[in-house]
Amino acid sequence: MRIEKLKFATVEEIYQNYLPLVKPITDTLEIFVEQSVNFVLAQDLISEEDLPGFKKSIVDGYAVNSHDTKGASMNNPALLEFAFEVKIGEEVVQKLKPAQAAWVPTGGMVPEGADAVVMVEHTQRFGNLVEIMKSVAPGENLLKANEDVKKGQVVLRKGTRIQPKYLNILYSLGIEKLLVYRKPKVAIVSTGDEIVEPFVKVKKVTQVRDSNSYALVCWLKNQFGFEAKRVAHVRDDEAELTKVLNQCLNEYDAVVISGGSSIGVRDITAKVIEKLGKPGVVYHGAMIQPGKPTIFGFVDEKPILGLPGNPVSFTVSAYVFLIPVLRKMEGEEEYLPKPCGKVKVKKNIPSVQGREQFIRVKLTFEEGELMAEPLFSESASITNLVQADGFVRIPRGVEGVYAGEYVEFYKL
Amino acid sequence: MRIEKLKFATVEEIYQNYLPLVKPITDTLEIFVEQSVNFVLAQDLISEEDLPGFKKSIVDGYAVNSHDTKGASMNNPALLEFAFEVKIGEEVVQKLKPAQAAWVPTGGMVPEGADAVVMVEHTQRFGNLVEIMKSVAPGENLLKANEDVKKGQVVLRKGTRIQPKYLNILYSLGIEKLLVYRKPKVAIVSTGDEIVEPFVKVKKVTQVRDSNSYALVCWLKNQFGFEAKRVAHVRDDEAELTKVLNQCLNEYDAVVISGGSSIGVRDITAKVIEKLGKPGVVYHGAMIQPGKPTIFGFVDEKPILGLPGNPVSFTVSAYVFLIPVLRKMEGEEEYLPKPCGKVKVKKNIPSVQGREQFIRVKLTFEEGELMAEPLFSESASITNLVQADGFVRIPRGVEGVYAGEYVEFYKL
Repeated sequence: MRIEKLKFATVEEIYQNYLPLVKPITDTLEIFVEQSVNFVLAQDLISEEDLPGFKKSIVDGYAVNSHDTKGASMNNPALLEFAFEVKIGEEVVQKLKPAQAAWVPTGGMVPEGADAVVMVEHTQRFGNLVEIMKSVAPGENLLKANEDVKKGQVVLRKGTRIQPKYLNILYSLGIEKLLVYRKPKVAIVSTGDEIVEPFVKVKKVTQVRDSNSYALVCWLKNQFGFEAKRVAHVRDDEAELTKVLNQCLNEYDAVVISGGSSIGVRDITAKVIEKLGKPGVVYHGAMIQPGKPTIFGFVDEKPILGLPGNPVSFTVSAYVFLIPVLRKMEGEEEYLPKPCGKVKVKKNIPSVQGREQFIRVKLTFEEGELMAEPLFSESASITNLVQADGFVRIPRGVEGVYAGEYVEFYKL
Repeated sequence: MRIEKLKFATVEEIYQNYLPLVKPITDTLEIFVEQSVNFVLAQDLISEEDLPGFKKSIVDGYAVNSHDTKGASMNNPALLEFAFEVKIGEEVVQKLKPAQAAWVPTGGMVPEGADAVVMVEHTQRFGNLVEIMKSVAPGENLLKANEDVKKGQVVLRKGTRIQPKYLNILYSLGIEKLLVYRKPKVAIVSTGDEIVEPFVKVKKVTQVRDSNSYALVCWLKNQFGFEAKRVAHVRDDEAELTKVLNQCLNEYDAVVISGGSSIGVRDITAKVIEKLGKPGVVYHGAMIQPGKPTIFGFVDEKPILGLPGNPVSFTVSAYVFLIPVLRKMEGEEEYLPKPCGKVKVKKNIPSVQGREQFIRVKLTFEEGELMAEPLFSESASITNLVQADGFVRIPRGVEGVYAGEYVEFYKL
């Protein structure tokens, strides 16, 4: 059988060979900026104006000709004539003449003729005279009219996922609507004869409440705004699984199967994917720990992933593989997981031959230093997910990590 | 006047003297787990059962008495009698006798009489016989019935903000509803004579579109689920500001004023807060850069904060001060900003006397190493917020940081 011949793939191979096959959604929609957080831009956003749009003071003080302040100091102040006061929001038409100074508030317009602003702390006003006690260089304490944004400049690139910190510039430029990509619709199917619905009374101690599919829906919705739905639970039955997956492939952009970690069940999932369409299963297993029994397929260009049933493996596999697939699908430019800094590991981490490891760690502060405590409990322990702040990644072929070494941290 | 006498406060002073005065909301509500992400738990969550609830195999293989495998190896396998097969989800009543082995799938129940599981890779089946080619220790490859969670154990503490990664354990334990705190209602008021609504045609080049108040609403809603509303824009007028803030204090739990960075305008805001009620302004300015002109007040126990109008200062001040206030108010146990690892700075960062600095940095990968490039452009540049991935924090009294040093990174 073909599946048997397929090799396991490394994380890099999956990133290099599987992810590029994921077709981005091309449908777009126009949305209001206030609804745009977590959508991905479908076009470069080009500014239609300069920002700030006028020569803007960034301090409270006196607008001056900088050469009038040459050599000015506490002991040897420059004496300038008070010309006028600029009010906030006011368009100044008066020009500043040499040897004059004009009061400008923070955010106020610097009048023509002035090329710098002296902070109020370094000035003293006596009636019609202003003492300048510090020299300023041309351009000091002001923003030029196009210093922040130039008309025609790309302020946000196509493929950028909108974050709250980007909204300031959008509102500042008066941008009301954005063209974004449609969100991928993700179907989640749980499998396994032992699985029961989470809120029913468990009849046998060996029954396991479905947590993966429901938790994944919340995760995908909350962190990325994906349209995720838990479609069904299916028993370990080829015909039933085929029927449900076929429906999902008709109605959704991507399909996730929460599996089935035992050999027999994984084989059913792989067999069904193979029969559903071409190319079927692309990789059957990843060189990663936890998360090894992940299945990577496509049916008629739609990604279909089988994730391991153990909740920790499921979460790691979703983090490392599924989420990049969906981010790529949504048209996001940077879709791979990124570390957010280095942390010092508290204990030795032994390596596992041939497999890249995603070790769950708990961050603690010790003597002002951020430390990562590896959680070595079985990956079958769900409490692992409660204790862990994220992962450290130990590449294949690395001889483990010693206590005290710094490694890159991935926030969960 | 009293305000004049109030000192600037350091970040530490604000954390030690102002934040503890913030009264947590005590109203609670019951919500469904699927709606719970970003709510804060109002009670310890105690498990009513053991997890996994039965002796569970974590591999595919043969359940055995470990002492029957003593000394077993490839060259000297132990020969056991095949007893029966355990099916996934099945409650096994048969007991395993000495010198027997039972097939167990991953997640299946380990029968009584067995104390370990041998992975299928280290076994071979010949009809009624099972060859065991590796010895196992007691407890190997299985989870005890209460190894993951013990009945009566606190699985999540009161004061925890629910994250998607916590949902697996909630669903696994069959928890359907949670008692959480009500979300704080936050009023946001923008001030400034230069400020205009974002989507109107600007009449003068010196008019500035309101970005802070609208962007903050999206930020607070999206990242924390706070009930934030941009209530009004108010011109720099004492009477008008008093009226609007009074209304806000009646209807909301906390009030934010997007200010007004010039001295005159800040004074109006502080004066109005002083008149609204006791204790009024607690701190008038923070020893931080950017974000110095932040006003910290309380009116009848409700926090009222004046944030600087410059968008970068506004964002830093919201990150460092406002968000901790609101998180504390919602009953969250850990409410201060936390770094998420160390990054190597690419350029020297000079220190600023007496002020703690939050330097915006852009993260890049160079030769496989995460580097932080300080963005030295004026904090008045809004593009700063687009380029920055977050901040590095340079404490007061530190003589700057040299290129190549590692500093803690705070993700924005």
